[in-house]
Amino acid sequence: MTRSERPTIVDVARAAGVSKGTVSFALNGRPGVAEETRQRILDAARDLGWTPSHQARALSASRAFAVGLVLAREPELLGADPFFPAFIAGVERTLSDRGQALVLQVVPEAQEEAGYRRLAADGRVDGVFLLDLRVADPRIALLEELGLPAVSIARPDVPSRFPAVLVDDRPGIASAVRHLVELGHTNIAHVAGPSQFLHARVRRAAFEEALANPGPVVEADFSAAGGARATRMLLAMPDKPTAIVYANDLMAIAGLSVASELGVVVPAQLSITGFDNTDLSAYVSPPLTTVRTDPYLWGRAAAEALLASIEGGTVDDVPVPSAQLVVRASTSPMLPAV
Amino acid sequence: MTRSERPTIVDVARAAGVSKGTVSFALNGRPGVAEETRQRILDAARDLGWTPSHQARALSASRAFAVGLVLAREPELLGADPFFPAFIAGVERTLSDRGQALVLQVVPEAQEEAGYRRLAADGRVDGVFLLDLRVADPRIALLEELGLPAVSIARPDVPSRFPAVLVDDRPGIASAVRHLVELGHTNIAHVAGPSQFLHARVRRAAFEEALANPGPVVEADFSAAGGARATRMLLAMPDKPTAIVYANDLMAIAGLSVASELGVVVPAQLSITGFDNTDLSAYVSPPLTTVRTDPYLWGRAAAEALLASIEGGTVDDVPVPSAQLVVRASTSPMLPAV
Repeated sequence: MTRSERPTIVDVARAAGVSKGTVSFALNGRPGVAEETRQRILDAARDLGWTPSHQARALSASRAFAVGLVLAREPELLGADPFFPAFIAGVERTLSDRGQALVLQVVPEAQEEAGYRRLAADGRVDGVFLLDLRVADPRIALLEELGLPAVSIARPDVPSRFPAVLVDDRPGIASAVRHLVELGHTNIAHVAGPSQFLHARVRRAAFEEALANPGPVVEADFSAAGGARATRMLLAMPDKPTAIVYANDLMAIAGLSVASELGVVVPAQLSITGFDNTDLSAYVSPPLTTVRTDPYLWGRAAAEALLASIEGGTVDDVPVPSAQLVVRASTSPMLPAV
Repeated sequence: MTRSERPTIVDVARAAGVSKGTVSFALNGRPGVAEETRQRILDAARDLGWTPSHQARALSASRAFAVGLVLAREPELLGADPFFPAFIAGVERTLSDRGQALVLQVVPEAQEEAGYRRLAADGRVDGVFLLDLRVADPRIALLEELGLPAVSIARPDVPSRFPAVLVDDRPGIASAVRHLVELGHTNIAHVAGPSQFLHARVRRAAFEEALANPGPVVEADFSAAGGARATRMLLAMPDKPTAIVYANDLMAIAGLSVASELGVVVPAQLSITGFDNTDLSAYVSPPLTTVRTDPYLWGRAAAEALLASIEGGTVDDVPVPSAQLVVRASTSPMLPAV
């Protein structure tokens, strides 16, 4: 730093021997910074003549008034998932009221870290959303290093200083299983999502915990094609299930079609439940029993929390209503064969 | 303009008595500016001492390296349409290779103009995509006024200087109708999209042109619920159709479900065609005969054309392959009642 320049948060970080992100967390009073470290940062700031008003000016000059969403999916696969448009619509409803923009990046998984680094380096965004949390998700540490405010959808399974929208898929899956048990089913199977995603794991664990004696579990990929394949496997088993709990609607709707093709009557010979309550789920044949989630609401809540984080406040986790079972015509007691 | 400032494109526009957009078009050699107007603009630029190098500097300083997409749909309705994620995925594939970002705005229709004005005023984007073209779309004139490069999906029905990705839904609809005629159908109905959208009009016109004696047309809203309602209306007619051409898959899939509920067997008693070839269309029962479009490819092509426009070149309209009919099990000759 030369004499003529004002000290910046980067200078404070260098003097205190910590990352810029840690300085930002410490100065914003966010939890997760050790008291000793916080004191060292405050001392360094005072020694350098750094004052909050400089930071405020720097911040106000460098604010992008935009937030980012990095989606690490093969672009070809994005179109199949109705979650994203609904989530983005909710985010936009909040952002447009506040004069903020959404910057979207779709990157191959191998370039995900680079995507976040680029957003941070370009100063394109003031914060980001964390979706599709994975097991031991490396993005938590990455974003702390980058000093970029973030809000995650659901709580990660690693320590995170970022607020989370407390989406919990467990009660929804548990109520679908309970519904099937009450109908008299004893051999209930599950078609799961890919196990690297926390939400797929959570749904599978909720399925297994809800049954004393869970039936077979087939891991698929949330796609219609994957759901169809998994259904064929389950219906080819010698002791085939009388009910299948799918981890999303797209796979469940494909399951309805496979059953019909194989001459298995839904629900008389096979009960099927979905997850998401997509638009189409009420308009398939038979209409699908499913779990209503609310990605639009989650998007609104996540955007509110992210803007509050960016403005420097301490932001608590955001509770959201539990998902609700929607009973339609794809579930019933088993009927005796004619 | 004071002596100490460099002349800008705005000063040239004022002196020549034209919009900033027209100056930009004229100086970039884009078609659609009358020769007399172009000469007046060049004279004004010379008189003011404006030179292209100033413009180049101004442009390079003010480039956002981002492009915008303004979607004027009720956010709640976005989630149902698989077009957007696929289109956006294609756009992103091109943008991410070129270090560009996508800024997304979802606004109520009444705030659409304000959305574009804000993007332009904030300098957030260097250009925009024009989707969901409407009849006499006011955005063409708006974007010319704003001087913002744009690329439209399909050709507008008003004069436009912007390049278009030449999406043409006619051959796809025509081949669906031809397929049904070849199967022996003579009473063929159409479930259309909202008539304010050009693509809905184009599909309806293609349907009507393909038949000497077109059956009934019901206008719906592209949603599953709307498709279900329209199907009920058609199947309640005294002289009910033996085949229905739907303007999208979502309405067609809902139509399958309504037929099943009413005991109308598809395809023996009713043939159904969709439009889009969504992921799910192959996994409904019976699998849907539909028209394969390629919004992912359109997104890639639109992004290429937009970046080329932003770089100042003259960009031609972009041809794309015609949509293809995909014959599955929802269409057949009428079978005699048992």
